[in-house]
Amino acid sequence: MSHNTFGHLFRVTTWGESHGPALGCVVDGCPPGLRFKLEDIQAWLDKRKPGQSRFVTQRREADLVKVLSGVMLDADGETMTTTGTPIAMTIENTDQRSKDYGEIARQYRPGHADYTYDVKYGIRDYRGGGRSSARETAARVAAGGIARLVVPNMKVHGALVQIGKHKINRQNWDWDQVNQNPFFSPDAEIVPVWEEYLDGIRKNGSSIGAVVEVVAEGVPAGLGAPIYAKLDQDIASLLMSINAVKGVEIGNGFGAAEITGEENADEMRMGNDGKPLFLSNHAGGILGGISTGQPVIARFAIKPTSSILTERRSIDADGNNVDIRTKGRHDPCVGIRAVPIGEAMVACAIADHYLRDRGQTGRLK
Amino acid sequence: MSHNTFGHLFRVTTWGESHGPALGCVVDGCPPGLRFKLEDIQAWLDKRKPGQSRFVTQRREADLVKVLSGVMLDADGETMTTTGTPIAMTIENTDQRSKDYGEIARQYRPGHADYTYDVKYGIRDYRGGGRSSARETAARVAAGGIARLVVPNMKVHGALVQIGKHKINRQNWDWDQVNQNPFFSPDAEIVPVWEEYLDGIRKNGSSIGAVVEVVAEGVPAGLGAPIYAKLDQDIASLLMSINAVKGVEIGNGFGAAEITGEENADEMRMGNDGKPLFLSNHAGGILGGISTGQPVIARFAIKPTSSILTERRSIDADGNNVDIRTKGRHDPCVGIRAVPIGEAMVACAIADHYLRDRGQTGRLK
Amino acid sequence: MSHNTFGHLFRVTTWGESHGPALGCVVDGCPPGLRFKLEDIQAWLDKRKPGQSRFVTQRREADLVKVLSGVMLDADGETMTTTGTPIAMTIENTDQRSKDYGEIARQYRPGHADYTYDVKYGIRDYRGGGRSSARETAARVAAGGIARLVVPNMKVHGALVQIGKHKINRQNWDWDQVNQNPFFSPDAEIVPVWEEYLDGIRKNGSSIGAVVEVVAEGVPAGLGAPIYAKLDQDIASLLMSINAVKGVEIGNGFGAAEITGEENADEMRMGNDGKPLFLSNHAGGILGGISTGQPVIARFAIKPTSSILTERRSIDADGNNVDIRTKGRHDPCVGIRAVPIGEAMVACAIADHYLRDRGQTGRLK
Amino acid sequence: MSHNTFGHLFRVTTWGESHGPALGCVVDGCPPGLRFKLEDIQAWLDKRKPGQSRFVTQRREADLVKVLSGVMLDADGETMTTTGTPIAMTIENTDQRSKDYGEIARQYRPGHADYTYDVKYGIRDYRGGGRSSARETAARVAAGGIARLVVPNMKVHGALVQIGKHKINRQNWDWDQVNQNPFFSPDAEIVPVWEEYLDGIRKNGSSIGAVVEVVAEGVPAGLGAPIYAKLDQDIASLLMSINAVKGVEIGNGFGAAEITGEENADEMRMGNDGKPLFLSNHAGGILGGISTGQPVIARFAIKPTSSILTERRSIDADGNNVDIRTKGRHDPCVGIRAVPIGEAMVACAIADHYLRDRGQTGRLK
Repeated sequence: MSHNTFGHLFRVTTWGESHGPALGCVVDGCPPGLRFKLEDIQAWLDKRKPGQSRFVTQRREADLVKVLSGVMLDADGETMTTTGTPIAMTIENTDQRSKDYGEIARQYRPGHADYTYDVKYGIRDYRGGGRSSARETAARVAAGGIARLVVPNMKVHGALVQIGKHKINRQNWDWDQVNQNPFFSPDAEIVPVWEEYLDGIRKNGSSIGAVVEVVAEGVPAGLGAPIYAKLDQDIASLLMSINAVKGVEIGNGFGAAEITGEENADEMRMGNDGKPLFLSNHAGGILGGISTGQPVIARFAIKPTSSILTERRSIDADGNNVDIRTKGRHDPCVGIRAVPIGEAMVACAIADHYLRDRGQTGRLK
Repeated sequence: MSHNTFGHLFRVTTWGESHGPALGCVVDGCPPGLRFKLEDIQAWLDKRKPGQSRFVTQRREADLVKVLSGVMLDADGETMTTTGTPIAMTIENTDQRSKDYGEIARQYRPGHADYTYDVKYGIRDYRGGGRSSARETAARVAAGGIARLVVPNMKVHGALVQIGKHKINRQNWDWDQVNQNPFFSPDAEIVPVWEEYLDGIRKNGSSIGAVVEVVAEGVPAGLGAPIYAKLDQDIASLLMSINAVKGVEIGNGFGAAEITGEENADEMRMGNDGKPLFLSNHAGGILGGISTGQPVIARFAIKPTSSILTERRSIDADGNNVDIRTKGRHDPCVGIRAVPIGEAMVACAIADHYLRDRGQTGRLK
Repeated sequence: MSHNTFGHLFRVTTWGESHGPALGCVVDGCPPGLRFKLEDIQAWLDKRKPGQSRFVTQRREADLVKVLSGVMLDADGETMTTTGTPIAMTIENTDQRSKDYGEIARQYRPGHADYTYDVKYGIRDYRGGGRSSARETAARVAAGGIARLVVPNMKVHGALVQIGKHKINRQNWDWDQVNQNPFFSPDAEIVPVWEEYLDGIRKNGSSIGAVVEVVAEGVPAGLGAPIYAKLDQDIASLLMSINAVKGVEIGNGFGAAEITGEENADEMRMGNDGKPLFLSNHAGGILGGISTGQPVIARFAIKPTSSILTERRSIDADGNNVDIRTKGRHDPCVGIRAVPIGEAMVACAIADHYLRDRGQTGRLK
Repeated sequence: MSHNTFGHLFRVTTWGESHGPALGCVVDGCPPGLRFKLEDIQAWLDKRKPGQSRFVTQRREADLVKVLSGVMLDADGETMTTTGTPIAMTIENTDQRSKDYGEIARQYRPGHADYTYDVKYGIRDYRGGGRSSARETAARVAAGGIARLVVPNMKVHGALVQIGKHKINRQNWDWDQVNQNPFFSPDAEIVPVWEEYLDGIRKNGSSIGAVVEVVAEGVPAGLGAPIYAKLDQDIASLLMSINAVKGVEIGNGFGAAEITGEENADEMRMGNDGKPLFLSNHAGGILGGISTGQPVIARFAIKPTSSILTERRSIDADGNNVDIRTKGRHDPCVGIRAVPIGEAMVACAIADHYLRDRGQTGRLK
């Protein structure tokens, strides 16, 4: 069972609500002997941090991560070495605006988990979304920071490739652009288009969906397993576990439905270096559930948040019809901040399969 | 770990290769007291069975399922009652064409798992695809037959909604049509279009992708769990575990990326019967990972098989460049037979969450 | 996998080392709607707390538990209600004596995990035993405090029944005595015997083993499952996971090897209240892995700690022969403090099976 | 969850009842490239087979094992090589005596799982014990046959060390004796004592308990993990899952409660070969949950079967008091046949931890 845990040999358990004192995670199964500094993990949290542009929620959180276990500190007081024991990390909640939740506590916001939580549990922490708040994803990003250390030479990076109907031009793809704009766009040309479009969305108090693409490079061939432990299956599972995600693709994805076997299958040749070479990567780096050694490519679709200013019809916990308008902090495109979260999930899935394949102890790496 | 097992309280383990004596599954966790006849399970296998039209592989398999454990037989010699112990089912392989696999044994077919299996395991059963053969899905369909019994009044049905670029007209959707044509199409009008198109594909020895949609009706609200045991996450995981699947969507799916919060969120009102009523189902029956009580809707994309007549570039296990043409039985659109397989996966995922929610013993249902 | 996690529907993950800033646990799967105060959990930690008599380690820890998530606080500021989300609890380490670990860092104490940790991980936190410190059990006891709430009317209590060769007289068993002496002895008469014996052990800087018995009353019939999810199996697994435990028994235990079927099997009769009645409880409340409704009875043996003042032969990490004497805080009978830990483990195992049987949501209890 | 499955990387799922057509198991996670003949597995089943002396049940079963998947056959038609895919094995039930189960179907035999199965499931296969029959252990022994292949140079062997109050003399221990007598006794001198004693038990229609010891040699140091994946914990769990087992010990076991730290801890010295050497093995080859490289030693107690000729008081499913006498095949000491079963469980636990430590693919061994 895995209500709040994922992974098998690299296991992550997260906990915490939007308005509790803190949230965090326990990363279990990290191999011993990996070395890092706190700032290496913090960097990923900074990338996900709210309030960094007018296009994302204005909640202000420092999101400073602490490591409470699982490491030994060098004499420099900075460098940590993993010991193979569980790594507990916490992040304090600081910007929990106190307000009167009276109404919201009983009303079901359309498109939110309010109704289903109440049906399932008969009780729900309505403050800021409680457990279903996107704040939970801070813990994922921290865990992903550890996962990135597990597979030597792996690089996992992501980009926003679509907002609403506006898709990037893939010809313009430039990884260096991704951190140069508030959207993680790899296409510099689309940035002004998205800015104008999102300003309109924002001013209307509306919201819009998006698509994120994550690419993992340096993934060795042979990770994953056929049938029910496919690498792509586990990536799909974790991406689908992110709040608001409604679709996941690997490689050609739904595009594969539209093309022929000739077009879709990746041919091979021996490379000049005497190593097998794929001549294309329609498969997204995974065949039969097992990595090919090519970049692993995944995409996922994020729905628009339903926290909008327009009044919407709903009901409350007492069975009354009500009309709801979500006031307060507003996030016109939650897909933007999903980029580092998607990266973290892909990194964790690959780290898990790396350890399944290689085993869990340092001496055999 | 779950290399060949999926599910938690409703657990399915499958085994068997294309060219072994048999394949099968063990369904563990099925509640006691469910009653069925063998023909109830066989019906689903018949739906998946190869050789039923010119548009699918011509392998001939009776695919007769046997139940070896987990049930008690009524005096009528037909009706079985589950006892709560594991249900083992087997299906014999009968049409294992003997042929010389000499070349294939050493060559990697582009787009197949041949190369990745060899990288991972250093050995692979090349006969008919071995474990990566789609024959494994017969065991899934048998397990799905049991899963369908677990949730009272649940109906899981699927349809093919796209072949290549030819999509159905959703206005024409008629569930009664699905079993009236060789494609499981819910749109009678597209059938001749698909026939002509696929005949072309077939005559060229080519192949084409497809999209399947599965709808589960009668799913009670409250199944699933937030964060890492989302119902949609587990459905996505299982659909992605089917051979050749490259993308999965829930509800609006990737379409949700293109619309606003106003368009996407499902409003609610109290129904005349005093029960909560959703006014639309963009969410595909799941909010925050938990079922809403509306139909659960999932779609998945199947790539075209890479077993095609056109010669393709590849390598062999000895590091030589080779050119491969797949002779023998040929499947122009593997997506067609994926319909009952997708149904089985969705049924199993929901059954698992039903038992997590309700517990596993008969007396408390 | 479960390196630092146990349980399935009631899942506990612990983390933390002896000399880190804190240790803690995440309790996942606790049903919603359970109500408790912090002092209810703290009480169990107080029972386990070190330094309460001269017969246990003199480390001084307040062992104050904090609840960071998974609950909503009543207006009284004290009463908490579980929400069904993960309950994170932490306990700070306060008495981490700074000392020079120079020698110990490289030497393997005989009977400790020093050598095996180094073989496995190639690195080990030698400060106070690191992860293998008995401080980890504080997190278990906190988790057990939650587990005790899960099964209505269940009472789990334990007692020390043997120190060295000195066994209690079971005729004298009086639960009210258990908290009246520093040994959790149910037999008042043996207390002076144990005191004198342990004073001798303590003064010699030696140590001695012990046996603990745990009894769970109010366990409903029908918990557990046959074959590989037996209730006794899971209790045995958790008791054996406690540091220094070398043996586990259910009911008659090893005594069952010595008697006949006539003596061992528990006969039944219908009770005057129309309910089934067992006439004895040799089985320890479990038959075929499933609870009978009688008290569940488990015992476990704890070895003497190998941290003793007598010089012992060993080696160091560089392959030199060394002679080791363990200085510092000394625990003549670690078995004493194992009583509340054993209780916690039994409570957790039963809570897990209760939820497997009944399901996880509040509405169906 | 693991109702009928155990292990993580080396996973075994068993199925089947006493009176169904067959029983079997699926072994998942076996590494590729292991070579064996069917007779290698059959040999272990033959050791467990009923009817081999007057001291065990007279049921006659050939217990011939078949391998249905997961292997490729050599040209010799005999040698199999594992491929890394699941190995399904079946064993047919042939001696299912037809008889009238009318009374037994409704009556609860004291000391059996009849009552608890009915409480839990509301239905039970009363024929020959159904799922709770010791026939299930044939599947364990087959799985153990595969497990023995996983760890290179590991030898797992067991012996009966106690029947009733009659213990072997450990001074006489001689492994070569074990297969020379019908009891798997390592002590030739006790054989006539046991024969006479058991003949008495058998003639009275009574039964008696026993203790089995299993020793695994050639277990590399470093297997297992601290806290909740201790090697001894997993061994204890699997031994306790065997029918009728009521107690489990590792190394000194309950004896460790009676001795001092000086006596119990195993001292070390560097050996002449430059390798670490333990001077004793009180720990039973496991420290802190991790193997030391010494032989792993486990013992378990088996209760006497409650199927005896003496009339016993009980109730039936309708709430009537009844008196029961178990007619038919009778097993005076079920502990004897538990020897190969215990060996299989220990082998499986070690194989699982070996793979967790080393990973699952052939290329890294």
